[in-house]
Amino acid sequence: MSTQEHAKPATTPEREEFYGRIGKKDLSPLWENLANLVTPQPRPICVPALWKYSDTRAFLMEAGSLITAAEAERRVLVMENPGIPGQSQITGSLYSGLQLILPGEIAPSHRHAACALRFVLEGTGAYTAVDGERVSMSPGDFILTPSWTYHDHGNTGDEPVIWLDGLDVPIVNLFSTSFANRYPSETQPVTRAEGDALALYGTNMLPFGYEVHGLNSPLFAYRYEPSRAALAQLARHGDPDPSHGFKVQYSNPATGRSPMPTIGAYLQLLPKRFDGIEYRSTDSTVFVAAEGQGYSMIGEQRFDWTRRDVFVVPSWIPVSHHTPDGEAVLFSFSDRPAQQLLGLWREQA
Amino acid sequence: MSTQEHAKPATTPEREEFYGRIGKKDLSPLWENLANLVTPQPRPICVPALWKYSDTRAFLMEAGSLITAAEAERRVLVMENPGIPGQSQITGSLYSGLQLILPGEIAPSHRHAACALRFVLEGTGAYTAVDGERVSMSPGDFILTPSWTYHDHGNTGDEPVIWLDGLDVPIVNLFSTSFANRYPSETQPVTRAEGDALALYGTNMLPFGYEVHGLNSPLFAYRYEPSRAALAQLARHGDPDPSHGFKVQYSNPATGRSPMPTIGAYLQLLPKRFDGIEYRSTDSTVFVAAEGQGYSMIGEQRFDWTRRDVFVVPSWIPVSHHTPDGEAVLFSFSDRPAQQLLGLWREQA
Amino acid sequence: MSTQEHAKPATTPEREEFYGRIGKKDLSPLWENLANLVTPQPRPICVPALWKYSDTRAFLMEAGSLITAAEAERRVLVMENPGIPGQSQITGSLYSGLQLILPGEIAPSHRHAACALRFVLEGTGAYTAVDGERVSMSPGDFILTPSWTYHDHGNTGDEPVIWLDGLDVPIVNLFSTSFANRYPSETQPVTRAEGDALALYGTNMLPFGYEVHGLNSPLFAYRYEPSRAALAQLARHGDPDPSHGFKVQYSNPATGRSPMPTIGAYLQLLPKRFDGIEYRSTDSTVFVAAEGQGYSMIGEQRFDWTRRDVFVVPSWIPVSHHTPDGEAVLFSFSDRPAQQLLGLWREQA
Amino acid sequence: MSTQEHAKPATTPEREEFYGRIGKKDLSPLWENLANLVTPQPRPICVPALWKYSDTRAFLMEAGSLITAAEAERRVLVMENPGIPGQSQITGSLYSGLQLILPGEIAPSHRHAACALRFVLEGTGAYTAVDGERVSMSPGDFILTPSWTYHDHGNTGDEPVIWLDGLDVPIVNLFSTSFANRYPSETQPVTRAEGDALALYGTNMLPFGYEVHGLNSPLFAYRYEPSRAALAQLARHGDPDPSHGFKVQYSNPATGRSPMPTIGAYLQLLPKRFDGIEYRSTDSTVFVAAEGQGYSMIGEQRFDWTRRDVFVVPSWIPVSHHTPDGEAVLFSFSDRPAQQLLGLWREQA
Repeated sequence: MSTQEHAKPATTPEREEFYGRIGKKDLSPLWENLANLVTPQPRPICVPALWKYSDTRAFLMEAGSLITAAEAERRVLVMENPGIPGQSQITGSLYSGLQLILPGEIAPSHRHAACALRFVLEGTGAYTAVDGERVSMSPGDFILTPSWTYHDHGNTGDEPVIWLDGLDVPIVNLFSTSFANRYPSETQPVTRAEGDALALYGTNMLPFGYEVHGLNSPLFAYRYEPSRAALAQLARHGDPDPSHGFKVQYSNPATGRSPMPTIGAYLQLLPKRFDGIEYRSTDSTVFVAAEGQGYSMIGEQRFDWTRRDVFVVPSWIPVSHHTPDGEAVLFSFSDRPAQQLLGLWREQA
Repeated sequence: MSTQEHAKPATTPEREEFYGRIGKKDLSPLWENLANLVTPQPRPICVPALWKYSDTRAFLMEAGSLITAAEAERRVLVMENPGIPGQSQITGSLYSGLQLILPGEIAPSHRHAACALRFVLEGTGAYTAVDGERVSMSPGDFILTPSWTYHDHGNTGDEPVIWLDGLDVPIVNLFSTSFANRYPSETQPVTRAEGDALALYGTNMLPFGYEVHGLNSPLFAYRYEPSRAALAQLARHGDPDPSHGFKVQYSNPATGRSPMPTIGAYLQLLPKRFDGIEYRSTDSTVFVAAEGQGYSMIGEQRFDWTRRDVFVVPSWIPVSHHTPDGEAVLFSFSDRPAQQLLGLWREQA
Repeated sequence: MSTQEHAKPATTPEREEFYGRIGKKDLSPLWENLANLVTPQPRPICVPALWKYSDTRAFLMEAGSLITAAEAERRVLVMENPGIPGQSQITGSLYSGLQLILPGEIAPSHRHAACALRFVLEGTGAYTAVDGERVSMSPGDFILTPSWTYHDHGNTGDEPVIWLDGLDVPIVNLFSTSFANRYPSETQPVTRAEGDALALYGTNMLPFGYEVHGLNSPLFAYRYEPSRAALAQLARHGDPDPSHGFKVQYSNPATGRSPMPTIGAYLQLLPKRFDGIEYRSTDSTVFVAAEGQGYSMIGEQRFDWTRRDVFVVPSWIPVSHHTPDGEAVLFSFSDRPAQQLLGLWREQA
Repeated sequence: MSTQEHAKPATTPEREEFYGRIGKKDLSPLWENLANLVTPQPRPICVPALWKYSDTRAFLMEAGSLITAAEAERRVLVMENPGIPGQSQITGSLYSGLQLILPGEIAPSHRHAACALRFVLEGTGAYTAVDGERVSMSPGDFILTPSWTYHDHGNTGDEPVIWLDGLDVPIVNLFSTSFANRYPSETQPVTRAEGDALALYGTNMLPFGYEVHGLNSPLFAYRYEPSRAALAQLARHGDPDPSHGFKVQYSNPATGRSPMPTIGAYLQLLPKRFDGIEYRSTDSTVFVAAEGQGYSMIGEQRFDWTRRDVFVVPSWIPVSHHTPDGEAVLFSFSDRPAQQLLGLWREQA
């Protein structure tokens, strides 16, 4: 179909009249829209943006007094990309929000076709239950709720707990494949001991005779401490990637693929005084600062970030990261695995 | 996230005021939109629809006198789903149109990230060139132009040639992964003899030491005659599937997967007096009658179709096919492979 | 472990005495055998060899008068590699023989863990039944009997039929994984029409919703005519590979992999006056001339072959093919797929 | 081919005379050997056997005074299965031995096509170097040296170190695919810090943008402590498998497959007073007791084992494990992955 060099055909009265007539028959002239449908480069509908945690947290605590987790089902403030207001999307393909659960609260059990990830930002004492196993949540933990698995959250501690949610809802809806339902009771029964999934799948071993089922990781909690320690080991002995510093991707230990088929998650350590070179790829990416502070150049714009701030880098816009004041750690997620599965992904260093 | 049983929280003045304030900070309350974002069942944005070939063809021939293939780049009338007018989409994830190329015309060479398929409806004498090989086009032929391969079309015969186009443009754009450009000259050089791809990949053999590259089929022309003969063989000796009759899927001979990662294509023979039972799946599907006539019940609506008519069955709406007056052959395509790669596809017989 | 440069340790009386003592405890000193166990290059136990069809055929016809197919179960003369007499092996990992079935005879139905291939050399009127479908056998046809599928052969014509058998028996036995049994009756019931498998799997289409089961091809008969025609098409328009001429590999249309997991099969056209350059690979290969005549240099030895002669090229011994007197077609098979699955295969052009 | 019910054809003088004549032409009658070639069930050439560590260790220490590691290249006592003496094989497809390295010794660097595994039985202070990284070896550690990777061992401590070696040499040689050579110097240079491979691949994360190369695990040291802790977690909360107790398989974290394509490795905890039920599979398996004591019934034979004893269970012979005196841990390895890749593996509980 079209390309930049292609000039849109001239408009004439008889063509106009023709377009009007065929429009009534649910037909339209491709040549009038070609340039917008098939663009020479990506035209992301989302724009670069940053949410300061200090702002969002204040609103979130205020929401805590306005509505209960039970009434809200999930007490989440959705980060809406300024380029697509009202769409409940942080990028063209992903949803993201910040969720608050207060001491004693329960977010009731449900399941849906959409895959969800959590990255814990603040507080301890909360848990997520998936497939009958409860895992406690601590800052920096990366937690999955795979497609179509019942999950509920609770806070049995004495402080507010806040995490970042990321879901592939826009992808699920593009394909018209949404399914969801509530669990009969508020919480699902606990049938496994905490740590069983880690013991079965997270120690470079698998159950004897294991067979892969589905595309989601059977390991659904990735603790921050070992992930962070791995980055430290790499940083002690190796050289950083010029664009990414020391960067790793969370992996499904049963396949080596991404934890979810649609969303990839990453953790990177930027050493002190790192001045990354520009990098771009087609997967619009959501970043949150897990440690430290710094700034990122997204295209021509500078975004200063500190711990727990969230920012977005749209498809194909060059980004570089900088840490003049000390090392920092960034967690990020994107639809890269989906793009790769569909043969659509590109990058440029 | 949400479910049907879940009641939307009550609206109060202070909540309204809060929503207004956080909106200015690009935040929104999930609980206000949850029911629309995460639905208990698919809510396709497209609706059942049918395009009579007699109507579309007349418009297409009129377009032939209004604009040249060269000026239009591609002279296509896009079938716009009535549920989403102005979107150049026939379903929530796919584009489809009818393309006309007149004797002596050339549709110039270009390439794009989007995958394209053609199903020839009328006329002989046209060709499609892909990767340096030209293949002639005859009614019933299924022809691919894989992602990022230069392709051009020409009509060296003496009659109009019309085919159905299907592309994954909405998927490419959801992910913001569109790339496209024109070939330096109007047509790409022919570097291989017609039939080479068929000889190399289409005879249940592969080149010695062959290695798979990419996700698209190296075989890009599937002739109607052998496909049709295969269906006839099955019909002579076997029993039809109660919903699908005798149905096969076009396959990438180098992998056994779909010819393109995002789009699957199918051919089915409905025997005379076939009364199919209802079937539904999450992949909204575009059908065109390659032979014969009949009708399909899509939900509660009846759509009568005859040769070359095009109709759409949206996600999760039950469909049944009926051929009271004689056997018929339906070609169809959908995003099923993409949904399966992403773990989203479901069906119900 | 060891290498050629490594000198075997000296033998001393006390070491001898020690070896004797530990031998009684089922122990042996690695250093005494290292050089033979872990060699710097392959040391195939088979040697280059050729079987003239004129000789073998005469013996086979004589066998036809000495024993019936029913009494023999399979009337086969095994080609025993001269390097390993008495082992019923043509290479270190494969079995091969020539099978004769006379008019009116039946080779009774059985199944086994071993995979078998047939390449028909002479005669028409015979059939092979696999999974309830009978396929007629004609010269040049390549026919599979996948692992653990019941199969029987019959000759309903009026002339002797002879084919080449290839099986992975030595591999099955190395792993101690042999299973076999007879079908309750002499022939299995015919439940499908001839051509069904070809219609379902052999036309670049697959059954709707097809899922791969197992590692063997669902297509079990590859006709000579289309394979030969594909080679002719390539030869008309392309340049031959300097070592292989025009060479293709039989493929499992449901996966693009070899028809059987352990054995690969190949067909190559050597144009007239072809003087191939040396090639070697680690898969010892069995060749049979399907058409024409020529000679092959295997290492330093020259082997002249004509139609239906069988010859063997051992692992890592360079081979070149030559056709001074006209074009020829070679069918070949080897354990290449097994070696590739296990990460052991190498080649050198 | 043949089956148990099949009677071997009668021998007659003229048949004998015929067999003699064709034998001279490297031909043999299949029907004379069919029953031995294609058996109704596996006929493993290896037999059940056990090596008491107390015996083997004494011989190994004696070997330490008879030959140096440098002279031996590898000071290993090969465990030769009593069923196949002189073959340097512990099963039909695998090699195993016990290796001793004394303080100050170096086993020089080399590489080979064969895959090797180590399971450390006694002593600390030794290291294995693979791909430029040295890993220290402690009792219970499972260490790989993948196919064609340079590796050397050294003992920088002050006590003897002994481990179990397992290699796929018989498989490599069946396929005639052996390659090997020495590294130019005695030890390869150390280019990575100890722990880098673990940090990059062993923490349920992978390097950013990682692509799988080859069939061997990039993680080559699996520590005993975390593996053992995982088993303890499972034992605290779950029920043992009736045959296997609590059993896991070592996994390639980049693929979820076995660490090597040919050999699988397993670790199982047998709780106190476990009385396992019979199990059999086609993969002849080598066991070593990592902890505790017990006995195993292999067919009708009882084998009592204690810590570090090695025993073999041949293909398809039922085995059951029993721990009357306290919990025990068994490490084991077999060719199961190779059998599964080739479609040959079976089991029966």
